[in-house]
Amino acid sequence: MSKHLAGPEIEKLIQLLARVPGLGPRSARRAALFLIKKKEALLKPLGLAMQDAAEKIRICSVCGNVDTSDPCSVCTDPRRDQSTIIVVEDVSDLWALERAGTMQVKYHVLGGHLSPLDGIGPDDLNIAGLVNRVAEGNVKEVILAVNATIEGQTTAHYLTDQLHPYPVKITRLAHGVPVGGELDYLDDGTLAAALRARTSL
Amino acid sequence: MSKHLAGPEIEKLIQLLARVPGLGPRSARRAALFLIKKKEALLKPLGLAMQDAAEKIRICSVCGNVDTSDPCSVCTDPRRDQSTIIVVEDVSDLWALERAGTMQVKYHVLGGHLSPLDGIGPDDLNIAGLVNRVAEGNVKEVILAVNATIEGQTTAHYLTDQLHPYPVKITRLAHGVPVGGELDYLDDGTLAAALRARTSL
Repeated sequence: MSKHLAGPEIEKLIQLLARVPGLGPRSARRAALFLIKKKEALLKPLGLAMQDAAEKIRICSVCGNVDTSDPCSVCTDPRRDQSTIIVVEDVSDLWALERAGTMQVKYHVLGGHLSPLDGIGPDDLNIAGLVNRVAEGNVKEVILAVNATIEGQTTAHYLTDQLHPYPVKITRLAHGVPVGGELDYLDDGTLAAALRARTSL
Repeated sequence: MSKHLAGPEIEKLIQLLARVPGLGPRSARRAALFLIKKKEALLKPLGLAMQDAAEKIRICSVCGNVDTSDPCSVCTDPRRDQSTIIVVEDVSDLWALERAGTMQVKYHVLGGHLSPLDGIGPDDLNIAGLVNRVAEGNVKEVILAVNATIEGQTTAHYLTDQLHPYPVKITRLAHGVPVGGELDYLDDGTLAAALRARTSL
């Protein structure tokens, strides 16, 4: 094993790198060697950036976003429409929607989806926080931008039930043909949904 | 872009992670979010491990291996056969051979292979160091364990020329069928080499 060769520091680095998503034991070894070779240009700055992030990053207590301030810069941005909340499963979905850049609104990050099989119930998600924000009365529309999976849709149904008592419009993302997508490669469910939701030209 | 959302610390973390081999811009975002979620269990320890490695790791001035001591623990190991040197292109090859664990010998890491197209000549590799070690007179065999690629074989030829003046046996790894490999999937060159080097039972 390499632990007899390269010392405990490298072994530890490889072990931790192997737990990063996208890297396995083999690619972690390759990554560690690459980092060691680029010590000044990459290994040192990356180590510092990680410590810096670990020290400064907070979870926003309002929406669940990650940022260096709490409330986060999205929640405190006065230019955003305060009356619309997009509900997403994960921070990465929030980033994806922001990259799309269509709506300047607020967000709410659930932190996952309901999944009874995995023991994830409503209390494990940031749902109470969403209901509180809606109960305050300033929100006019909640857009459920959860994944189009079974779990995502179950979560959407549950959220709809929870938000039902409040005078708020609840919407979901449209189903349809992805832009640039070829019909031949699409599943039947998507095609059927795209046909049903056809729009006139 | 996410830089307006998540602050410069996360943006910097993502940018640096994207330069790690095995990760791209997209998987770097996913990895960064995963690390932030596992702040105590992974992000902090990994940042520390990187700084620790950056501080302590040296390139062995004898053989080119990476270790926390110079000369490295392989070079200073008295139980290893001092008269045999295995020449490899990269530290990862040294690790692979040690995992195979067949020979307790010394190594020499070239740091790559000759590649005129990429502007990598003899002076860019740790070749002078190898010639010096052989010139000292204690080495009886040099095993060229370079890759079986065009560049690796070019490098092997060059090394053979350089070591020719010295009374040292120069060998290379055997070509043949990989253990567990199926003949049907092997290339013609490997099959021909395996046939030529057939052994009697």
